[in-house]
Amino acid sequence: MFRATIQITLRPSILDPQGKAVAHAVASLGVAGVKDVRMGKHVEVTFDGLSEEQARGATEEICKKLLANPVMEDFRFNVERVA
Amino acid sequence: MFRATIQITLRPSILDPQGKAVAHAVASLGVAGVKDVRMGKHVEVTFDGLSEEQARGATEEICKKLLANPVMEDFRFNVERVA
Repeated sequence: MFRATIQITLRPSILDPQGKAVAHAVASLGVAGVKDVRMGKHVEVTFDGLSEEQARGATEEICKKLLANPVMEDFRFNVERVA
Repeated sequence: MFRATIQITLRPSILDPQGKAVAHAVASLGVAGVKDVRMGKHVEVTFDGLSEEQARGATEEICKKLLANPVMEDFRFNVERVA
């Protein structure tokens, strides 16, 4: 089996109000030194019965068609074998 | 400056209805071989004026006090220098 670990992040030019809210909350906690916070999605997809290459292709397709908004978001992933 | 890249994931024993919904949507797309999908959060925190060790300590504190629910979620992070 293979597991794809996917990070979906807002493009740098897109404002991130959720990240700004977290940055304010961090300041309220009294943690200093935080310059910026950006929020994104983390997705783990487990494949069964596919080769590593097929799992990579399927992950790319899932990201493009379903998980990421290509106008606002970037995605990157890596695929590794799991027991 | 240092940037912490944080992954927050549901503990394996916790049901993930959002992941199940994505798995169904993937099947509807016609992508075969997906056994499981788990959703989580991806957070990038940029620190300014802190040492690497201070950035690690601040990240740990932010995760424990603010970002992760310790009953249901695990977190892991790495800190790297950015320009």
